[in-house]
Amino acid sequence: MANSMELWFTELQNSNLSIGLRVNRTLHSEQTEFQSLDVVETVQYGRMLVLDGCVMTTDKDEFVYHEMLAHVGLHTHPEPKNVLVVGGGDGGVIREIVKHPAVERAVLAEIDGRVIDISREYFPQIAQGLNDPRVDVQVCDGIKHVQEHKGEYDVIYVDSTDPIGPAVGLFAKDFYQAVYDALKPDGLFVAQTESPFANQDLIRHVHRDVRDIFPHTYLYLAHIPTYPTGMWSFTMGSKQYNPLEPVASRVRDTKYYTTEVHKAAFALPPFVQELVQK
Amino acid sequence: MANSMELWFTELQNSNLSIGLRVNRTLHSEQTEFQSLDVVETVQYGRMLVLDGCVMTTDKDEFVYHEMLAHVGLHTHPEPKNVLVVGGGDGGVIREIVKHPAVERAVLAEIDGRVIDISREYFPQIAQGLNDPRVDVQVCDGIKHVQEHKGEYDVIYVDSTDPIGPAVGLFAKDFYQAVYDALKPDGLFVAQTESPFANQDLIRHVHRDVRDIFPHTYLYLAHIPTYPTGMWSFTMGSKQYNPLEPVASRVRDTKYYTTEVHKAAFALPPFVQELVQK
Amino acid sequence: MANSMELWFTELQNSNLSIGLRVNRTLHSEQTEFQSLDVVETVQYGRMLVLDGCVMTTDKDEFVYHEMLAHVGLHTHPEPKNVLVVGGGDGGVIREIVKHPAVERAVLAEIDGRVIDISREYFPQIAQGLNDPRVDVQVCDGIKHVQEHKGEYDVIYVDSTDPIGPAVGLFAKDFYQAVYDALKPDGLFVAQTESPFANQDLIRHVHRDVRDIFPHTYLYLAHIPTYPTGMWSFTMGSKQYNPLEPVASRVRDTKYYTTEVHKAAFALPPFVQELVQK
Amino acid sequence: MANSMELWFTELQNSNLSIGLRVNRTLHSEQTEFQSLDVVETVQYGRMLVLDGCVMTTDKDEFVYHEMLAHVGLHTHPEPKNVLVVGGGDGGVIREIVKHPAVERAVLAEIDGRVIDISREYFPQIAQGLNDPRVDVQVCDGIKHVQEHKGEYDVIYVDSTDPIGPAVGLFAKDFYQAVYDALKPDGLFVAQTESPFANQDLIRHVHRDVRDIFPHTYLYLAHIPTYPTGMWSFTMGSKQYNPLEPVASRVRDTKYYTTEVHKAAFALPPFVQELVQK
Repeated sequence: MANSMELWFTELQNSNLSIGLRVNRTLHSEQTEFQSLDVVETVQYGRMLVLDGCVMTTDKDEFVYHEMLAHVGLHTHPEPKNVLVVGGGDGGVIREIVKHPAVERAVLAEIDGRVIDISREYFPQIAQGLNDPRVDVQVCDGIKHVQEHKGEYDVIYVDSTDPIGPAVGLFAKDFYQAVYDALKPDGLFVAQTESPFANQDLIRHVHRDVRDIFPHTYLYLAHIPTYPTGMWSFTMGSKQYNPLEPVASRVRDTKYYTTEVHKAAFALPPFVQELVQK
Repeated sequence: MANSMELWFTELQNSNLSIGLRVNRTLHSEQTEFQSLDVVETVQYGRMLVLDGCVMTTDKDEFVYHEMLAHVGLHTHPEPKNVLVVGGGDGGVIREIVKHPAVERAVLAEIDGRVIDISREYFPQIAQGLNDPRVDVQVCDGIKHVQEHKGEYDVIYVDSTDPIGPAVGLFAKDFYQAVYDALKPDGLFVAQTESPFANQDLIRHVHRDVRDIFPHTYLYLAHIPTYPTGMWSFTMGSKQYNPLEPVASRVRDTKYYTTEVHKAAFALPPFVQELVQK
Repeated sequence: MANSMELWFTELQNSNLSIGLRVNRTLHSEQTEFQSLDVVETVQYGRMLVLDGCVMTTDKDEFVYHEMLAHVGLHTHPEPKNVLVVGGGDGGVIREIVKHPAVERAVLAEIDGRVIDISREYFPQIAQGLNDPRVDVQVCDGIKHVQEHKGEYDVIYVDSTDPIGPAVGLFAKDFYQAVYDALKPDGLFVAQTESPFANQDLIRHVHRDVRDIFPHTYLYLAHIPTYPTGMWSFTMGSKQYNPLEPVASRVRDTKYYTTEVHKAAFALPPFVQELVQK
Repeated sequence: MANSMELWFTELQNSNLSIGLRVNRTLHSEQTEFQSLDVVETVQYGRMLVLDGCVMTTDKDEFVYHEMLAHVGLHTHPEPKNVLVVGGGDGGVIREIVKHPAVERAVLAEIDGRVIDISREYFPQIAQGLNDPRVDVQVCDGIKHVQEHKGEYDVIYVDSTDPIGPAVGLFAKDFYQAVYDALKPDGLFVAQTESPFANQDLIRHVHRDVRDIFPHTYLYLAHIPTYPTGMWSFTMGSKQYNPLEPVASRVRDTKYYTTEVHKAAFALPPFVQELVQK
C-alpha cells in the first residue's frame, strides 16, 4: 500500500491552538490589494477559501455559517425588503438571503473584488446567489457605504474576516453607530463575532458597544467545525423586533436552519451569558 | 523578546483532520494494562488527559461534556436513585451526578484503575466527586457489570473513549441490550456518540441499534472545543421518560447546563436529523 | 501586512523525526501502478518530487545527490563505457553520467514510467540528460534487467527509493550478486544507502552483504539537506579499482563534486566506520 | 496496540523550513535573564537543550559539534596553552578542550549562568569537563571579556546561538577585531557560522569581515542532523598556523574527529567555495 504525501494546511487560531486539514491540491493563490487569498482542496471539507491564512469557508460546512447568519436575521424581521451585506464576497449569505421572497433588493458591499471573482470561479454553489436580479454587487468600502446610506435598510449583515487587517473597522463602535443610522426605524443587524471559548474579550466589547447603541442586543450560537473551537457566535442589534419570536420559516431545503434551531441558538450556556451580561 | 519553544500536542482526529494544542510541559506518561495514558499542561486549556493519543478531558472545557452527559439524563428522570457510569474514570460525570440530592448510589465501573488514580492526582477538581459517600468505585469490566445487574439502575451512562481499543464493546448492540436489561422498568441511558460532522456512520448505527431495543431514542448536541469538529453528540435510550420535558433544574453553579440549554440541545439541524431518521 | 497561508509538506522520516517544507502550490498528484507520485513547489527548495510521501529530489539540492552518486563511481573507473542505472527515473544521474565523454552507452532501467514522464514535464533541468543519444531508457524491472545481462557493464548505479515498497528487492543480497555478475571483470557499482544517523542497521547489513560478494567495499558520504538527518551514505562494491585514487576530474561546472570532495567523502567519522567494520 | 500521544517539538528554522522531533517528556522550562531555556527528552536524540526555541544540543548528536569545534582548532595550533570559549555554557566544547594535555587554562565566558546550571543538572556527560581544575568558568559578557584581555589566548572559540537575540554581537566585525587583539601573535579562533544551504549571506559577510582582519581565513564543514539542513559550517581566522596541516591527533575515543576527517572537512563543494571567495 502506497503512502500518500502529507500535505497539510494549518490555521494557527491563536499562538496556542491550531487546526490542521489535509490538502489534496492547491487551486489558486494570489495577493490581492487587501489580503492574501488562497483556494485549496481539502480531503475532509472539499474546497476551502483562505484569506490571510484563515479559513473563510469550505464546501462541506459553509451551510452552517451562511444559513445561521442569514436566516436568523431575516426570520426576525416581519418584512425584510432592503438588505445589505458588508463583506461576504463569497456570496454565501446572499445565496441564503435571496431565498426570501420578501427581499426586493440585496446589496453586497465587498471591499475586495477578487474575493467575488474567485468565489464565482471556484465556489459556484456558494456564489450562485450573486446572479439573482435583486442583488446589487458593489466593490466598495462597506464602512463608507453604510455611512452614506441613512435609514435605508431593513437588515444589515456584517460578514467579515477576523478583526485583524482589513476587517478591523468592522468591529468598532463608530461602525455600529453608522449601521444603526443606516437602518430603518424597525431595522436590525447581525455580525459574526468569533468564538466564546477563544475570543471572550472581543464578544464582551462588541456586546457592550452594540448595547450602547441598540435598544435590544442578542447573542446566538452555531456549530462551525472549521472555525476555532467549533463554537461560533453572532451578535444581533435590533431596534424593535425580537429574535426569540421568529416568523414561521420561509425557506426550505436548509441543512442547518429550522425554526427550532433558530430558537435554540439563543439558549446560552451560563459561561457565555456571562460574557454579555451588563 | 525571547521566542518560546514550539512544543505541540496533535490529535489526528482522522487521517485528514487534526487539532493542535501548544504544550507547556508533560506531567505524566505511562502505558497502563489497557492503553497509553498521558497528562500534559496545555496553554489554551490547562491540564489535559490523553488516552491512546486522544484528548479525553481538559481543565478548561471539561465542564461541557460532564454537565451535558450527566444532567440531561438526570433531569429527564423524576427520581434517579441508582446510577451507573460505565467508563468515566476521571470522575467528572460522577462529580455532576452527586450534585443531585435524589441520587442514593452512584457506581463507577471503570476498567482501567490507572485512569482513576491519575485523575485523583492531576485533576482533583474533576475527580473530587469520587469521594462522595454515595459513590461506589469499582475497577472492573463495565460490560460484565452491566450483564450481571438486572433491573437495578434508574440511569446508566456510557462515558467511553472513541470506539477503538478497549471501548469497542461499548458501541455494540449486545451491550445496549444488556444496558436495557440492567435498567429498571422506567430507566434510561445516555452514551457519548461522537461528532455528527465526522462520525456519521457511527451515529446512524448506534441510533438504529438503540431504537431496536428502547421505545424512545434521542440525540442531543453540545459544543466541545477539544473534540473533533467541536460538535458532539449524545444518544439517549429511554423506557418511559421524555427528555424534551425535563424536570426543573436541581443543580446550581453550572457553566453549561440550564433547563433552556437542555431543551435546546435536542433541536437538531436537518443534516443531523437525517442521521437518526428511520 | 498580510499573512500567508500555512501550507506544509511533512515527511515523517521515521515515527520520531520529521522535516517540514512550506509549499506554495501543488503541481501534480497521481497514483501510478507502483507508488503515489506528487510534484509540489516548495519555498525553500523549489519544485520537489515526492514518491510514496518521501522527498526524492528538489530543484535546489538535487545536484548533491546526482553528482555524488554519478561522479564518484565514474572517476573511480579509468574507462567507463557501458553504464547502467537501476531506478533513477528522474534522469538526474543520467544527466551527470553523460557529461563523461568515455561513456558510450547509458541504460536507464526504471520500473515506473510515470516517474520519467513527470520528470520530463516538471523537472526539465534534471531530465535533460535522458535525451542524449547514448542513453537507452527502458521502462522495466531493473532486477530482471540485471539478471539478464552478464558481464556487460563497467559501472552500475542503484538509484532507488527507500527500502520499502517497490525498492525492497534493491537492498537484497541476491540482487547484489546479480549486480556483480552483470559487471565486467573490472566493474564496480554504487548504491544509495540512507543515513548513518538514522539507518544504521541498513548500512551494516548492506555492507556485510556487499563485502561477501565484492573484493572491495567502500562507504562514502554527502550532505543532502532534504534527506533525513542531512547526512547521506553511498556504498560502493568494486572488483578492482580503488575510489581513493580517482582519475583526474573529467567534468566541469559541478556544484558539489571536485576531486578533493571525492576523496574527502571517504573520510569516515569513527561512528560511521564502526557500521562498516568487519 | 495502543497509540502513543503525538507530542512534537518543532524548530521553525526559517519561515519555510522546519524540523520536528517527537518528545517523550519535558524536563525543565524557564525564562532566564537572557533567553527562554527548555530541556526536553526526544525519542530520536535523547535529551535536548533548547534556547529561544532553537535546538542547541542533544545527547545523541552533540559529539559532532563539540568535537569539530574544539579539535580542529586545537590540532591546528602546535602548543595551545590558553584557550577561551565565548558562550558554550553547556560545557561540551570545554569537555573536548580539556582532553588536550597541552592546555593549561581554559576560560569559559558564558553570559547566561542558567545555561551552565541546567547543563550540569540535565546533561552531566556534556558538562563534565567544567569540573576540570584547568577550567575557569566565568559568568560574564564574553564580548567584554575579549575586549579586556589583549594578546592572552592561543585559541578562542565562539560557541554561540544563532545570530539573533543575545548572540548578535558575536557576529559583528568589531567583535572579530577584539578577538584578534585578544589572541597571541600566533593565535587563531574558530566560530560556528550556520548552514551553507540556509544562511549564505551570513557566511559571506562573516568571511569577508574575518578576512579583513586575519591573514588566513578558512571555512570547514560537519554533518549535524539537528541543525538546519544538516550541513554546518565553522569559520577559522588564523594569524599563522594552517589547519590543512594539522598536528597528529592528541585525542582518543572521539566519535567524529580524526585527522582524516579534520582534513576532509576543508574540502568544500564549489557552491560553498563560492560563498567564501574574494
